[in-house]
Amino acid sequence: MAQKRTLIFITGNKNKLREARGILKGFEVRDRDIDLPELQETSGALIVEDKIRRALKLVDDAVFVEDTGLYYDALGGLPGPFVKWFLERTGRRGLLDLLSAYDDKTAYAKCYIGYGIPARDRKKEKIIVFEGSVKGRMVEPAGESKFGFDPIFLPDGHDKTYAQMVEEEKNRISHRRLALEKLREYLEKHS
Amino acid sequence: MAQKRTLIFITGNKNKLREARGILKGFEVRDRDIDLPELQETSGALIVEDKIRRALKLVDDAVFVEDTGLYYDALGGLPGPFVKWFLERTGRRGLLDLLSAYDDKTAYAKCYIGYGIPARDRKKEKIIVFEGSVKGRMVEPAGESKFGFDPIFLPDGHDKTYAQMVEEEKNRISHRRLALEKLREYLEKHS
Repeated sequence: MAQKRTLIFITGNKNKLREARGILKGFEVRDRDIDLPELQETSGALIVEDKIRRALKLVDDAVFVEDTGLYYDALGGLPGPFVKWFLERTGRRGLLDLLSAYDDKTAYAKCYIGYGIPARDRKKEKIIVFEGSVKGRMVEPAGESKFGFDPIFLPDGHDKTYAQMVEEEKNRISHRRLALEKLREYLEKHS
Repeated sequence: MAQKRTLIFITGNKNKLREARGILKGFEVRDRDIDLPELQETSGALIVEDKIRRALKLVDDAVFVEDTGLYYDALGGLPGPFVKWFLERTGRRGLLDLLSAYDDKTAYAKCYIGYGIPARDRKKEKIIVFEGSVKGRMVEPAGESKFGFDPIFLPDGHDKTYAQMVEEEKNRISHRRLALEKLREYLEKHS
């Protein structure tokens, strides 16, 4: 049996690591908890691209990072990647109340994954970004969850918030799942 | 007469340049329009510190940058430095409506100035941050202004929004003025 290809996942979150390992079967996913500075951009795509560029200076293996955001239609895509700060400062209630003045509660939960392949010659480094996006809307909190906005996000076509779903159910349809599967497809095609 | 000391102001904004020159009399303020990446942090202090670190790699003179933000008490200091994105995506109305769910409309208009002195030996570089802060509250738009949030910010102790004041009046009390004066005091003390 051939040796499994190694991928480094830059994260300090064990739940995300477990999820990634489950989806990227056939690959050896190792975590590295490096605190990389984040760019102030309203699209996670730009943030992960920049992060991977930094990460490639620190690791010798193929590497990936992820950025999760909540993009409200009524706010032109904000708070987007800034969602974590609103959760930290105002909680779920505050995150929901950002939409108080609006009837439109539509939102996209988006995960961007930046994937990078190092090269001796910096110019030959390869960086690719994968997007997983789930449309839904913001609702009154329902269900318990460790994950930030899960109780207030109701994905379209479902009658349960992310938090009301059992873990396997959520992981089957989540924005992060979609992005990780795109990464897996890419890896399998380029093995 | 001694030659004036040169300071580089990294900005693409001619109004801010004019204001800085007015306050930093006695110094030769030159502008450089370099687009420096911005860190995703909720305090402008960290943002300007990081920016100056980058700027010092590009210029040979003493250099400063500024970051202006609107820090809402009800939102734990947010949107803070992210205010520009909200202005861009949701306009002044949207910026005001972030507070729809709250009675507390208190806000701080803050300007952070990062000032840096280059050195051959990178470890001897000097970086200092100055803060100018004006307390006030968010109100229905009044007055015309080119400047982003001026019509909806009413500084404490005044009965006019920033936008309703004539330019000289605003520039006498503004958050940017306060920060620039701290920079001037520092420069005069260390000349």
